[in-house]
Amino acid sequence: MTDGKHKIAVLGGTGDLGWGLALQLAKAGYPVNIGSRKAEKGAAAAAEVLEAAADVDVRGGANPDAAAWADVVIMTVPFASQRPTLESVRDQVQGKIFVDSTVPLMPPKVMRVQLPEGGSAAKQTQEFLGDEVRVVSAFQNVAAAHLRSGEMDEEECDVLVCGNDPGARQVVVDLAEAIGLKAWHAGAIDNSAVAEGLTSILIFLNKKYKINGAGIRITGHVGD
Amino acid sequence: MTDGKHKIAVLGGTGDLGWGLALQLAKAGYPVNIGSRKAEKGAAAAAEVLEAAADVDVRGGANPDAAAWADVVIMTVPFASQRPTLESVRDQVQGKIFVDSTVPLMPPKVMRVQLPEGGSAAKQTQEFLGDEVRVVSAFQNVAAAHLRSGEMDEEECDVLVCGNDPGARQVVVDLAEAIGLKAWHAGAIDNSAVAEGLTSILIFLNKKYKINGAGIRITGHVGD
Repeated sequence: MTDGKHKIAVLGGTGDLGWGLALQLAKAGYPVNIGSRKAEKGAAAAAEVLEAAADVDVRGGANPDAAAWADVVIMTVPFASQRPTLESVRDQVQGKIFVDSTVPLMPPKVMRVQLPEGGSAAKQTQEFLGDEVRVVSAFQNVAAAHLRSGEMDEEECDVLVCGNDPGARQVVVDLAEAIGLKAWHAGAIDNSAVAEGLTSILIFLNKKYKINGAGIRITGHVGD
Repeated sequence: MTDGKHKIAVLGGTGDLGWGLALQLAKAGYPVNIGSRKAEKGAAAAAEVLEAAADVDVRGGANPDAAAWADVVIMTVPFASQRPTLESVRDQVQGKIFVDSTVPLMPPKVMRVQLPEGGSAAKQTQEFLGDEVRVVSAFQNVAAAHLRSGEMDEEECDVLVCGNDPGARQVVVDLAEAIGLKAWHAGAIDNSAVAEGLTSILIFLNKKYKINGAGIRITGHVGD
């Protein structure tokens, strides 16, 4: 850790969600490493962050190198790339917190909830990486455009944070709140099924109701 | 239909959610029939509605009789009673709209999302009842206490309405809005997995954050 802040890798950080997370985390003062399948693409994405923000601590490279460097590894890749990316970093993430934002969208029916074998993409990740990795799922429902633009006050989607280790969940809740998102502990990794499936419903709502960036907000009367 | 309003059966209408729905639908002017496994319990629940509200059109009896009488059948039973209830009314609901509010909670781990074989309870219902029944899922996340008390302005949980037939979904959206709930078309019956699983997350949030009746609200910028 640098200055008490976790070092964050963002695998697949060249994509919309990943790059937006990397930018906002860097601006929030976290040391960030943008990973990509090709080292030069990770480095190029880091250069773009440096162009977009001043005084940030960011670098980029290949996914395994970024994962090895970090304390907390965030993976933001399409569903089809989930397994190969996991295979490429399995050794490097042992003992760490691993944040999976994978949404199991299966084109062309992206508005239909289609959960993978075993119940959820993140649960598959926990099983694949093993018990020494604290897998947390989060960020499946965040509109990437808001992260990229930094208009976080327009971001009206709460983040559901699921994982079997409450301490690891808290780290991710803190990361989300550091970049201006409201985040909630949402229970065990099994519960990631809801956050993952919700993305298909939000895509449906965007189309049906012509909403720009549908999200959810948790409601209720605290302490009543 | 009476006065152009659908005749509504509420199977399992002696439970908290069912009785609350029956009360509010009756107050909204719908003819209501409260079904129960035992006819006398359905009749007794109807008598309670008559005590709670004036000038309502309500009756009660056995589930199959209530289902045979209605145009739209709403089932509000515990997960363990889902299959036997369906078996008892399969013939009576053919050609009708069937609303399933079943939440697949599996005690003791009610805070853990555990979706049934095939993906969701409502999808199982569609498969069991067959293609001549238009199955819609809704009301899994509504706080029954608010329905019972009629304090619908305190109800801050939007209703996700899933089903393969958009016209049947619209009927259910209209029913929900007639009793003061905000409801959304949420896509195909497969998408019910999210609404069903969400209940476990809401139970988790209630406990973790000491919320009284956590819910969700859909957010976003319409028409942007």
